[in-house]
Amino acid sequence: MSRFFTEKYASLVPYTPGEQPQNRRYVKLNTNESPFPPSPGTIAAAAREAENCRLYSDPESRLVSEAFAGSLGLEREQVLAVNGSDEALNFAFMAFGNRLFFPDISYGFYPVFAELNHIPYTQIPLREDLSICVEDYFGLDGMIVLANPNAPTGIALTRAQIERILRRNPDGVVLIDEAYVDFGAESVAGLVGRYDNLLVVQTFSKSRSLAGARLGFAIGDAALIRDLNTIKYSTNPYNVNRMTSAAGVAALAEDDYYRKNAKIIMQNRRFTTDALRGLGFTVTESSANFIFARSDAICGGELYRRLKERGVLVRHFDKPRIDDYVRITIGTREQMDIFLRETESILNEVGA
Amino acid sequence: MSRFFTEKYASLVPYTPGEQPQNRRYVKLNTNESPFPPSPGTIAAAAREAENCRLYSDPESRLVSEAFAGSLGLEREQVLAVNGSDEALNFAFMAFGNRLFFPDISYGFYPVFAELNHIPYTQIPLREDLSICVEDYFGLDGMIVLANPNAPTGIALTRAQIERILRRNPDGVVLIDEAYVDFGAESVAGLVGRYDNLLVVQTFSKSRSLAGARLGFAIGDAALIRDLNTIKYSTNPYNVNRMTSAAGVAALAEDDYYRKNAKIIMQNRRFTTDALRGLGFTVTESSANFIFARSDAICGGELYRRLKERGVLVRHFDKPRIDDYVRITIGTREQMDIFLRETESILNEVGA
Repeated sequence: MSRFFTEKYASLVPYTPGEQPQNRRYVKLNTNESPFPPSPGTIAAAAREAENCRLYSDPESRLVSEAFAGSLGLEREQVLAVNGSDEALNFAFMAFGNRLFFPDISYGFYPVFAELNHIPYTQIPLREDLSICVEDYFGLDGMIVLANPNAPTGIALTRAQIERILRRNPDGVVLIDEAYVDFGAESVAGLVGRYDNLLVVQTFSKSRSLAGARLGFAIGDAALIRDLNTIKYSTNPYNVNRMTSAAGVAALAEDDYYRKNAKIIMQNRRFTTDALRGLGFTVTESSANFIFARSDAICGGELYRRLKERGVLVRHFDKPRIDDYVRITIGTREQMDIFLRETESILNEVGA
Repeated sequence: MSRFFTEKYASLVPYTPGEQPQNRRYVKLNTNESPFPPSPGTIAAAAREAENCRLYSDPESRLVSEAFAGSLGLEREQVLAVNGSDEALNFAFMAFGNRLFFPDISYGFYPVFAELNHIPYTQIPLREDLSICVEDYFGLDGMIVLANPNAPTGIALTRAQIERILRRNPDGVVLIDEAYVDFGAESVAGLVGRYDNLLVVQTFSKSRSLAGARLGFAIGDAALIRDLNTIKYSTNPYNVNRMTSAAGVAALAEDDYYRKNAKIIMQNRRFTTDALRGLGFTVTESSANFIFARSDAICGGELYRRLKERGVLVRHFDKPRIDDYVRITIGTREQMDIFLRETESILNEVGA
C-alpha cells in the first residue's frame, strides 16, 4: 500500500481471479470458459468492426442491447450492456445494496463488492449437501444475491423457487446471477415484466464463447436499469467497445451454434460426473458448465497441484467447507478424457 | 429513480457524454476523435485476436502493458491498462481522493467522480484568459487533478510548471490527465521515477485513433499502481478485452503512423485557429486536438445549433464562463474547410 492510499479501502482484500497462464499450454479447465471458439459470424463481425475504432462506441450500446432484449422478448430499456457481468454486479451492489444477503458458498466476488462499497452483508450457510434452502431467503431486509446455478456447486434453483423468494421480498431487489444458466437451468429473465424487484445478470463469457471480449447484461424493470445507468454514466459511459458490441449482435443472430455447443457440454458433464462417481468421487448435480467434486482418497488442494503438474488446470478454493473439492470446467470430450485419465493415475499414485 | 435506489447516490448527476448520433452522418467535430483510422497493422491485430475470444483476457494485460511501459522507458509495474482512461480516473479518485482540487473549467467528469465517491472538492478558478495559475496549486491538502493540456481550453502547462506543483505538494497525489498530450504539449510521464506522488493518465482514444476500442493507462510509481490494482481487482479484474490489447500492442509498434497523423492535426489546428481569428473569433492557443473559440457576433449555443442543422457537429457546454464558446475537434483539412465555410455563412446570416 502506498502512503497515499485512502483509509476507506485500506482493509480491502481484492478478488483473486483464476490463473490465466500465458506460457505453458494446459488442458485449461479452471475458469469456466467454453472449449468452442465463437461462431464464424461472430468472429467476422468483431474483426470487421476493428476498422471503425477511431470513433467512440455508442454509449447506449443500442444495437446489441436491442438484439439482446429482443431475444428475451423484452424492450431495450429493460437491459444494460456491460464490460463483462462483473461490471453489472458492481453497479447493482452500488445502486441497490444497503444491506446484502447471499450464500456462504457462492461466487467469491460478492463479499468483495460488498466490502468495496461498505455494505453490511450476511452470508447464509448452504445446507450440508451444498444446496440453497429457499426459506432462508424469505422476508429479508435488503438485497438478495443468488447465483443460479450457484457457483462453484453448479446446483440450480427452479424458476418456481426463485418466484417464491421474489414474492417474499417485495421491498428488496433480488439479484439472480445467471452466468451459467444456459447449461440446463431455468432462467427468470422472462419474469422481468412481472416483478419490479427482479434484477438478472447474464454474460456472454460462458455459453457464448466470448470471455475475452467482455460482454454482459443486466436485465430488469426499466426503473432499475435507469438506476444502473446513473452509476454507469458516473463511472465509464463508453463501457462496451465497438468490436465486442458487434460480436454480441452476431452471436445473438447465430444462437443455434451456441445452443448446440451448450448441449455438447451438458453431455460431457453427464459423462464426466458419472465417470468421477465411478472413481469414488462425490460430485454435485450440476446445471452449469463445471462440476464440483471431492474424493476421500485425496484432498482438493493436492489433487489440484498434481493435476497441474500433469498439465491439467482445475480450480481449488482454499475456503472452509469446500477446501476438499475441486471445480472442473467441462470442456470437450477429449479434454475430459485427459482429465479423467490423469485423475485416475493420481488416485493410483496415492494408493487409493 | 426506482424505489430501490440507494440514498447514497440519490443526488448524483451523471456525466453527459458528447452526442454520438447513430443515424445521420455529420462532419463530426464534437468528441475529439481522430479523423484517421487506426493503422492497418492495428486493425489487423485486433481482427486476428477476435478468434481467441473464447478465453478470458489476461487480467494483468501483460503484453500491452509491457509494450506501453517500454515506449516510455518504464517498467510494467509502473503502468496499469484500463478500459478507457475514464476508468483510470475513477480508480485514482477512489484510491487517492480524500480531498480534491481541480480547475473550475476542466474535464466535466472530475466533479462527477468526486460526487460518486463522496469526496469533498474545491474548484479553483482559471484566470480570466482561461489559463491555469500554477501558484494556486501550491501546498494544497489533498489530490490535485489537472488535465494537460486542459479541456476544453486546450491550453497546456509546461513540464517545469508541473514539476513545481509536484514539489510543492509532496504529500498529495498530483494526477496529470494527459489525454491530449500528443498534440504538442510536454508529457510528464518520464518524471514518474522521480516523484512518488505523480500519477499520469493517458489514452489511446485521441492520437492513437482507438476511441471505440477503449484503452487507457495509468502511469506512476509502482506503489501507486499497486493501489490502483487493489481497486481494479475489486471491481473488474478482466477490464481490458483481448482485441483491444492486441490493437494496443500493434499501435505501439506503428508509432510513426500515429505521430504523422498528430502532426497533420497540429497543422490543421494552426490553419483553423488562424482562419477563425480572421473571422473575428477569440480562439485559445491550443495544444490539443481541438480548439475553443467564441465570437461577439453569435453566442456559443446558437452557433452549435446552426452548425448542427448544416451537418457539422461541434460541442457546446452550457456552463458559466464558457457558454459563449464552442469546442471544435480538429479533423482533416477537408472537414475544417467545411466547418469554416459553414461558420462564415452563419456569421453572414446573423448579419455579423
